[in-house]
Amino acid sequence: MSLLQSLFAPRRIALIGASSDARRLTARAQIYLRRHGFLGALYPINPRAAEVLGEPAYPSLAAIPEPVDLAYILLGTALVPEAVAECAAARVPVSCILADGFADAGPAGAAIEHAMVATARAGGMRLLGPNSMGLINLPAGIACSVNAALEAESLPKGRLSLVSHSGSLMGTLLSRAASRGIGFAKLIGTGNEADLSAGEIAEMLLDDPETDAILLFLETIRDPERIAAAARRAHMAKKPIIAYKLGRSEQGAALATTHTGAIAGSDAAADAFFRAHGILRVDQLETLFEIPPLAAAGPPPGAAKPPRRAVRVVTTTGGGGAMVVDRLGLFGIATARMHDTTLAGAAKGTVAEALSDARNAPDADLAIAVIGSSAQFRPHEAVAGVIAAAGKNPLIAFLTPEAPASLCLLAEAGIASFRTPESCADAVRAWLDWRAPRPPPAAPDVSAARSLLPSAFDEPGARALFAALGLPDGALLIDPDAPPPLLYPVALKAVCPGLAHKTEAGAVALDIADEAALRAAAAAMRARLGGRITGFLAQPMAHGLAEAILGFRRDPAIGPVVALGTGGILAEIFRDVVLRIAPVSEAEAAAMIGEVRGLAPARGYRGLKRADLAALAQAIARFSALAALPEVAEAEINPLILMPEGAGIVVADALLQTL
Amino acid sequence: MSLLQSLFAPRRIALIGASSDARRLTARAQIYLRRHGFLGALYPINPRAAEVLGEPAYPSLAAIPEPVDLAYILLGTALVPEAVAECAAARVPVSCILADGFADAGPAGAAIEHAMVATARAGGMRLLGPNSMGLINLPAGIACSVNAALEAESLPKGRLSLVSHSGSLMGTLLSRAASRGIGFAKLIGTGNEADLSAGEIAEMLLDDPETDAILLFLETIRDPERIAAAARRAHMAKKPIIAYKLGRSEQGAALATTHTGAIAGSDAAADAFFRAHGILRVDQLETLFEIPPLAAAGPPPGAAKPPRRAVRVVTTTGGGGAMVVDRLGLFGIATARMHDTTLAGAAKGTVAEALSDARNAPDADLAIAVIGSSAQFRPHEAVAGVIAAAGKNPLIAFLTPEAPASLCLLAEAGIASFRTPESCADAVRAWLDWRAPRPPPAAPDVSAARSLLPSAFDEPGARALFAALGLPDGALLIDPDAPPPLLYPVALKAVCPGLAHKTEAGAVALDIADEAALRAAAAAMRARLGGRITGFLAQPMAHGLAEAILGFRRDPAIGPVVALGTGGILAEIFRDVVLRIAPVSEAEAAAMIGEVRGLAPARGYRGLKRADLAALAQAIARFSALAALPEVAEAEINPLILMPEGAGIVVADALLQTL
Repeated sequence: MSLLQSLFAPRRIALIGASSDARRLTARAQIYLRRHGFLGALYPINPRAAEVLGEPAYPSLAAIPEPVDLAYILLGTALVPEAVAECAAARVPVSCILADGFADAGPAGAAIEHAMVATARAGGMRLLGPNSMGLINLPAGIACSVNAALEAESLPKGRLSLVSHSGSLMGTLLSRAASRGIGFAKLIGTGNEADLSAGEIAEMLLDDPETDAILLFLETIRDPERIAAAARRAHMAKKPIIAYKLGRSEQGAALATTHTGAIAGSDAAADAFFRAHGILRVDQLETLFEIPPLAAAGPPPGAAKPPRRAVRVVTTTGGGGAMVVDRLGLFGIATARMHDTTLAGAAKGTVAEALSDARNAPDADLAIAVIGSSAQFRPHEAVAGVIAAAGKNPLIAFLTPEAPASLCLLAEAGIASFRTPESCADAVRAWLDWRAPRPPPAAPDVSAARSLLPSAFDEPGARALFAALGLPDGALLIDPDAPPPLLYPVALKAVCPGLAHKTEAGAVALDIADEAALRAAAAAMRARLGGRITGFLAQPMAHGLAEAILGFRRDPAIGPVVALGTGGILAEIFRDVVLRIAPVSEAEAAAMIGEVRGLAPARGYRGLKRADLAALAQAIARFSALAALPEVAEAEINPLILMPEGAGIVVADALLQTL
Repeated sequence: MSLLQSLFAPRRIALIGASSDARRLTARAQIYLRRHGFLGALYPINPRAAEVLGEPAYPSLAAIPEPVDLAYILLGTALVPEAVAECAAARVPVSCILADGFADAGPAGAAIEHAMVATARAGGMRLLGPNSMGLINLPAGIACSVNAALEAESLPKGRLSLVSHSGSLMGTLLSRAASRGIGFAKLIGTGNEADLSAGEIAEMLLDDPETDAILLFLETIRDPERIAAAARRAHMAKKPIIAYKLGRSEQGAALATTHTGAIAGSDAAADAFFRAHGILRVDQLETLFEIPPLAAAGPPPGAAKPPRRAVRVVTTTGGGGAMVVDRLGLFGIATARMHDTTLAGAAKGTVAEALSDARNAPDADLAIAVIGSSAQFRPHEAVAGVIAAAGKNPLIAFLTPEAPASLCLLAEAGIASFRTPESCADAVRAWLDWRAPRPPPAAPDVSAARSLLPSAFDEPGARALFAALGLPDGALLIDPDAPPPLLYPVALKAVCPGLAHKTEAGAVALDIADEAALRAAAAAMRARLGGRITGFLAQPMAHGLAEAILGFRRDPAIGPVVALGTGGILAEIFRDVVLRIAPVSEAEAAAMIGEVRGLAPARGYRGLKRADLAALAQAIARFSALAALPEVAEAEINPLILMPEGAGIVVADALLQTL
């Protein structure tokens, strides 16, 4: 039996700690399994009962006569480790743990969690959770979960599968989608992911013939490599991966990570991660299950034919259409045409014809049908035109009134339909921003730079390493009392390892006109900083067109990222920084440059002189090769001076920190 | 009979152009009036039928034996003007016009609309529309509208009233609210507002004892003065006015205004307008009818006790709570504490106690209850704790699963409850940003400035006018060949009326060190610009800490506004501009300064030297007095140089345009 089968198609399930009180949380898994049609063997384990909810109970796992495919451990936190050990001893292929209070509760809990994983591994067993609400396979009628959404007498089966860090969100999404006639194939709560992670489950689901799209509800990203690998395969398999991730705000990130004991990465890094690997990220909760039929078409045509970022709207209500158009405008998505059929009514023929035209129009990426009041009382009539118009190019629908029946009909027809103008616009934005996974970048050659490691990095050291990666370095280590010929005016810097705020400390002198002034400046620095000075750097003064910050760091969740921002204090104030997973190609670096709003002047905004953006792109790409030097924790060029076209860039300050 | 009564409590209604074909749009008003309980007299007017849908028909208005309270004109566009004339002749108090094709169709239609208003006025008749879906008074059972939402056999009565530019949105909101058990008192579609405007209707609704809150669905703002007056009275009457306005994006604004023939104002001006007058503005559609119970508490405590911008969250689901907290964080709203009662379940006592604590906590402005799966299957139990905890300080709820019954129970209990984490966070943001209407500013004394008008304004003219308002002016009109003593270095500018891009044209010279250089610079300018030069301005060079743009204009929809932004190209790139309705007080100007992100350095960010912000606030307030000079269309100081504390500000360039 494969792991996928043990997880989603177990024939014998042990419920360890099953309660015989039907009102208890720990009774639910048994109730729900039977309610939703589990026909296999159930073994409630409860030493204080001969029978549990009408089925024979067992005092222990060892008392079960047959091998078990899956054990769901429903015990309190303190009793879990022993149960895990018993399961491992009995060679149960997979155990799922409901209780929390492990890594989510602090270092002591994390240690226990770690030990349980070791026990499981030693017994060849996989663990789901802890803090897992179990798993549900609706087409097979297996609801091995305590999630209260399973109270429903029946739930629609479908072809979406959900991997959720949060157990309760399984129910939230299940119930909301069900009310719209949108069904699920498999749902799984991965909780703390001590062993089985969202990435590994997503990989498995790619092989599941009953799953067409994979939804991720993430509190953080714990296994970026596996998720990335799954996403690359998903693209080949044409099974979109769609993510809703908490932690967009700092307080959200802090909460999500304390909640499950994960490490907090930055949300900008997560965004770069989703983008690099071809994962659709939605912003609004319901978009997560509304967008899949749109995503089924795959990402919009790629670099060869960039999206127009434009839609056509066909509406039976002017106000309803305007709401969507207005919101799309906020995302910079144009409306090539809005066709208002209000007077013509929602007659099938009129709407279908207008929508077919819209769907095939060369000036738009997709067509949006906005249906008004008819959707509420005459659902078949209201959606007939939309369904008739469906075809190759994407077509989606937004219904303005409360219209559950029409939403169900559209879901059945496989047309992405939206309850609110906000989620509709969110989906269009997410889809237009979606790109195929970038090819894994070639490992950059960093041998020259590697030979400079490890070492304590002062500024000359950082400059040497950047130069070994191919960045220009115009600074020279000099003896100011016997300087080589220099291109005056120059800047002079005292090298003082560990000195922060060099300018404020008087370790920098600018616009030095000649040798005499150089000597005087160096003397003044020596007087101020004395023995802290380990050398002097001189660099010709550069008067550039603009300044940028180029940064590199290892995000604790995502890994190496490269960041480009406007220079100076403004990048910070406006948070005007663009991030990518490192390393990046020059083409990707050029795209980054285009996204930094404050670099508009350097791009020739309003007829200003263009900077040497080709040199900047090259510098970004080369700098991003730091990703291949695992000893490097963090690096920064700030400012990086942009010279006019053809004149390259200047590294005006360099910083590097090793781990 | 008052206008309010004629509109919302008519006893005799003429339906001009009523169709006897029940499937026609023009038959609906009669059907819906009877379906929803209209007990008065209906007079379908149809010259081709003796009876319409079972009621006696009349060939014309004149044939009706009794005076009519309200006429709903259902005829096609071309026939409307004649019907309006007949209604006016018959002294019908109010006529409502369904057809569009008037101001919304262009200048010819606007002329016809204008003429109809004149006809109506001459007959003492008020007009609703054209392009109006009519009006609905649910408590009185009067559904005089063709809106298809009235197909419903019954609709919940409530204490919200809606004024909507868009007719179809009446149905959208009615149906969505009804599914949640949220009822309306009165709904009215004002369409093109040829005569009766949203502001006037809102004023009337303030006197309606059945209305507790007024919702506005606006495509534009046509009658700012009346809306402002209504909003001030609304604040006294403790009846919140809540607005959803299209046109946040430029394409949305363009569409909304072409749709109804309105003039496009800027959305930033509309936002300033809502803020100044104490109108709550929501961003998400459903927030519009979800927020009223929260708004019933009035705005958060004002300047004396500024809001903490913090909430307390009590949740039965960690993931559900985290979604709201995360989204609030994006608006800069902190979570003082999140109390997760997951383990304790949703037991009434536990939740109620935690919520009461949260509601009364001094570290938060309001409490949010997040209820998970129990809301779906055990609604009474799930919401009992929330309802028990309600009291003076605001308490709102977000339900994570599909839970219509729980939403209805909460609506019945008068607790603001939200379907999505997005609308929940939107409501909290809108409420925290809500302020009491600002007192109408004292009319500034502009007599000195007025005496300088009218005149063609070159830079010296603009400077003189600004100086007359009390702004500093450090520039002197000089004869460069015989200059007065100046504080060198100075800047010299040639005054060339109508010359754009002065710097590029060579009309500006900076850093002039002495008289000789001054003469030379003037000579060079004369050589370049010759007879265009009407004079020379000299001004000491100012090396400030930062630059700002101060602007004034008359928004076509809203009226005079004053804008403050970061100086230079960056204000434009980052759209870093703050707007207020002019004139502003110095206190309001100080608040504006605090909101311009790019002025953070001038505010002392990271220990930087603070600029003279008191002088800037004074300058903004004085400059905003331009509002009292109706001849002034537009004015700008760009750049306005911010000097260190105590050193004031410098007007480095001045521009003024009269109408």
